[in-house]
Amino acid sequence: MQLGLVGLGKMGFNMRERLRGGGHEVIGYDPRPEVTDVPTVAALAEALTGPRVVWVMVPSGPITSETIGELAEVLDAGDLVVDGGNSRYTEDAPHAKLLADKGIGFVDAGVSGGIWGLEEGYGLMVGGADADVERLMPIFDTLRPEGPREDGFVHAGPVGAGHYAKMVHNGIEYGLMTAYAEGYELLAAEDLVQDPQAVIQAWTNGTVVRSWLQQLLAKALAEDPGFAEISGYTEDSGEGRWTVEEAINHRVPVPVIAASLFARFGSRQEESPTMKAVAALRNQFGGHAVKRIGLSG
Amino acid sequence: MQLGLVGLGKMGFNMRERLRGGGHEVIGYDPRPEVTDVPTVAALAEALTGPRVVWVMVPSGPITSETIGELAEVLDAGDLVVDGGNSRYTEDAPHAKLLADKGIGFVDAGVSGGIWGLEEGYGLMVGGADADVERLMPIFDTLRPEGPREDGFVHAGPVGAGHYAKMVHNGIEYGLMTAYAEGYELLAAEDLVQDPQAVIQAWTNGTVVRSWLQQLLAKALAEDPGFAEISGYTEDSGEGRWTVEEAINHRVPVPVIAASLFARFGSRQEESPTMKAVAALRNQFGGHAVKRIGLSG
Amino acid sequence: MQLGLVGLGKMGFNMRERLRGGGHEVIGYDPRPEVTDVPTVAALAEALTGPRVVWVMVPSGPITSETIGELAEVLDAGDLVVDGGNSRYTEDAPHAKLLADKGIGFVDAGVSGGIWGLEEGYGLMVGGADADVERLMPIFDTLRPEGPREDGFVHAGPVGAGHYAKMVHNGIEYGLMTAYAEGYELLAAEDLVQDPQAVIQAWTNGTVVRSWLQQLLAKALAEDPGFAEISGYTEDSGEGRWTVEEAINHRVPVPVIAASLFARFGSRQEESPTMKAVAALRNQFGGHAVKRIGLSG
Amino acid sequence: MQLGLVGLGKMGFNMRERLRGGGHEVIGYDPRPEVTDVPTVAALAEALTGPRVVWVMVPSGPITSETIGELAEVLDAGDLVVDGGNSRYTEDAPHAKLLADKGIGFVDAGVSGGIWGLEEGYGLMVGGADADVERLMPIFDTLRPEGPREDGFVHAGPVGAGHYAKMVHNGIEYGLMTAYAEGYELLAAEDLVQDPQAVIQAWTNGTVVRSWLQQLLAKALAEDPGFAEISGYTEDSGEGRWTVEEAINHRVPVPVIAASLFARFGSRQEESPTMKAVAALRNQFGGHAVKRIGLSG
Repeated sequence: MQLGLVGLGKMGFNMRERLRGGGHEVIGYDPRPEVTDVPTVAALAEALTGPRVVWVMVPSGPITSETIGELAEVLDAGDLVVDGGNSRYTEDAPHAKLLADKGIGFVDAGVSGGIWGLEEGYGLMVGGADADVERLMPIFDTLRPEGPREDGFVHAGPVGAGHYAKMVHNGIEYGLMTAYAEGYELLAAEDLVQDPQAVIQAWTNGTVVRSWLQQLLAKALAEDPGFAEISGYTEDSGEGRWTVEEAINHRVPVPVIAASLFARFGSRQEESPTMKAVAALRNQFGGHAVKRIGLSG
Repeated sequence: MQLGLVGLGKMGFNMRERLRGGGHEVIGYDPRPEVTDVPTVAALAEALTGPRVVWVMVPSGPITSETIGELAEVLDAGDLVVDGGNSRYTEDAPHAKLLADKGIGFVDAGVSGGIWGLEEGYGLMVGGADADVERLMPIFDTLRPEGPREDGFVHAGPVGAGHYAKMVHNGIEYGLMTAYAEGYELLAAEDLVQDPQAVIQAWTNGTVVRSWLQQLLAKALAEDPGFAEISGYTEDSGEGRWTVEEAINHRVPVPVIAASLFARFGSRQEESPTMKAVAALRNQFGGHAVKRIGLSG
Repeated sequence: MQLGLVGLGKMGFNMRERLRGGGHEVIGYDPRPEVTDVPTVAALAEALTGPRVVWVMVPSGPITSETIGELAEVLDAGDLVVDGGNSRYTEDAPHAKLLADKGIGFVDAGVSGGIWGLEEGYGLMVGGADADVERLMPIFDTLRPEGPREDGFVHAGPVGAGHYAKMVHNGIEYGLMTAYAEGYELLAAEDLVQDPQAVIQAWTNGTVVRSWLQQLLAKALAEDPGFAEISGYTEDSGEGRWTVEEAINHRVPVPVIAASLFARFGSRQEESPTMKAVAALRNQFGGHAVKRIGLSG
Repeated sequence: MQLGLVGLGKMGFNMRERLRGGGHEVIGYDPRPEVTDVPTVAALAEALTGPRVVWVMVPSGPITSETIGELAEVLDAGDLVVDGGNSRYTEDAPHAKLLADKGIGFVDAGVSGGIWGLEEGYGLMVGGADADVERLMPIFDTLRPEGPREDGFVHAGPVGAGHYAKMVHNGIEYGLMTAYAEGYELLAAEDLVQDPQAVIQAWTNGTVVRSWLQQLLAKALAEDPGFAEISGYTEDSGEGRWTVEEAINHRVPVPVIAASLFARFGSRQEESPTMKAVAALRNQFGGHAVKRIGLSG
């Protein structure tokens, strides 16, 4: 089928390719002339045959809201917008409302798989009205991986359910990554283990901990033994933060996901004010030495 | 090749079957007459042709130590003992010493895969001298899963390295399970998500969080929707506890693995003394109501 | 000086008494006829001599907002409103704006000390313009404990700073309480310790951990040995949740405060869905027994 | 009464002074000639009038064991040894046994108060036989702070109970310090709060969080505003580690104490291998940028 696609970054670019490979007609828009098919969002709307379907694949937050606002201007009743980015699920209802006021449908789609999705397919979690989701199934079926539909695609509920599921997915992802990473550090800390990379490679098949992330960890270690070349400085996207905030909203204890988020915060601090305070306290009551800044330790 | 196998429980029984299917001659001993091939450990020793190889697959702790002690009595110089159970790696050196005093070799083997290993193969992490491990390779190659040897088997280092790696593997496993489980609870807590099981099923293919455990979670939910039939009461084996203890020994922060361990401890408490104390404190300073025992909430 | 006081609950009632004891003229309003001095908020406004000062001491959230809205109606330019409740600091700016539009000043005041404040004085953290805070100093000086002003009172910054400081104070309080409570459980778990209460009593003087909360814990244990009569079910007010949310906003790792919050969430769950999922997973891969609901363990 | 005192470091030196101030005759031994009263442990034994009492105040671990071993050589039946250091409680029984074989008594005494104990007195938690503890009461009564005996002293149980209580005390201390420190970081992170030190000073009186440690935090910040001069690098003594290990032994969830311990481990890492692995994983699946070592961020 025909699809408009706004946003041709790391994700959108690959998705256009996969969809075209699946026989769909994709007209993509991106502000970067070297990748775009049309010069403007308005031109995109004109180039599509109604009733139109436009997939938005831009950074979450203001850019997504602006893009949807722009689409509300140039699309017509009966058209359909999909937000495939990592928007916070609480933004879906306002976006849907804005579009519904003009008779335009809205579906939120959580998309997982990263840069590997081009070849392996994308895991999809979508929210929206049945009819809207139904209309998009040819697209979803091409984006999702081979195999049974229910293993790589879910219509999780009404508008918002897709992004909520994606948010939780990413929260889990934080926890999984930290679990593997703590294990790696434990292997590397013990002299008996002569080659941590070999152990992690050996976990890729047959073990209880085998997973795609586990394979990637083995691959990463093979490429950079001992992680000698990279820093532990780690960004976090919104979704880890939102997961903990939603856990608080729902009164759900999430010690593992929260610990994983905090570890990222900590990785970006040159010095921890918390630990300065602890060191200062120890010094106060116990006369324990503190490490003065600028002196070797 | 020929192998003696002591312990025919859930793991040992299946391993005997897989090894026999792979063409090995396995003579098994177990105190339960209905599964054993020989009446005693001594009879096992006699039934094997020297130089003998005996795999021990019994519960970790005293039973493993006793079994190895018994084997030290009935085996001879040149024989080889493998401890495939979940022994703490610190017990390997004493066991190896005990056997070495009689000229018997020792290899520690961490075995992962649970009840699925029979069909899918077992992930193996072994520690020991090169020659001892080499001698066991036909056995290891049959036990491990199909595919490249290095993906399901590792000779991790000298005696102790195999069990250390297995301990860390299980520590990671604790973290992974809790990460998925927290995510499940978050899905179940949100009304927008109409069918958490379907979401978890949809994560089995294409997503970043896909894994074997993830598939098992989908399977478990399909079998018992909403986990209506089971309690959250969860035992822990030694390995989660040892992982945190070794993290302390190595000064490695493991917030995720520790949180996972503590969650299991908590799951077994009818009432938490910690939270009684917190509730009592709140009452003391704030006059906040406490929930009296025996009264409805 | 003269003060209007809206809200005569556990906190407001005691504060009226302390202020009157300090020589101030306090006119209190509360919907409960048995404690109120005037029948309505409007009557309160009329009973006060301008320029008026009204202290709001009602539950945070909608009730505080409604009360401030009501006061905006009945007060005049030059009057001053203090929000002494546990409002989220982000609500202070809108409240201040609403009042400022009518020329009414606003100060936010975090008040600590619970039911003991009547006798011991209240710790105060306030935010607002210098002139507004100055005007309130006679009130603050009576409410705060004996001793140097700076030990029990702080003008922390502009509007919002008082409630922010109070929020952090309560976040710390969560952490302190859980730290003591974990220690209590560890004492109670060890047979060598014959009387945990006596140990906790002995920590009230001379030790590094001595504190007011520590004294309250000793008192609570003396009143209910072994906490035999209370449940661990523990509510949380908004402030613990907000502290973790603000930590996320500021990218500050707060593992201790978050763990304390999650422990409260957990204390209110009959069954943990997270741990059900973990138990189900263990059963799936290891064939480990699960505890069926309705069956004994 | 007369007391031998082995170890005149930061703690022992002050204790000698406090005890002498209380009218006791203290003969101290320390390898440093500038502080010792006698040249050797043997000379100490000779200088004391039997039945002798010797207090050991040396670093925990091998030095304590050696000292007790030495005392076993030079003391006689009817004498009494006190271990006032921070020994792990599990070492008390072997020490007691060693001494009991020669008819010498043993008492373990946890001593809290740090460098402030000289003036304010020491909180004491002791374990041992009733008669042995009774014999030491004049010493304990001088060391402990003013006020009711039960507020600064406890005979917690048989040998080991004192050090167990002290270990838990220190575990709590870890949690308290981190709770305050996280709060400090939250104050410092928010622009509304113009002077975090003033807020912390204002918490020293009247608030729920007031404590001795809280006062020390205010003092530390007054001395080094913003902790500009110190690093967050923080050592841990054995007791925090042992507390978590004992929690594991007793199956007690201690998320707050463990998080506090892990924060110290983390404070000593230039780079976290765990976070390197997380960063590498993010890069693998998402193509997210990593921070290369040697490049600015």
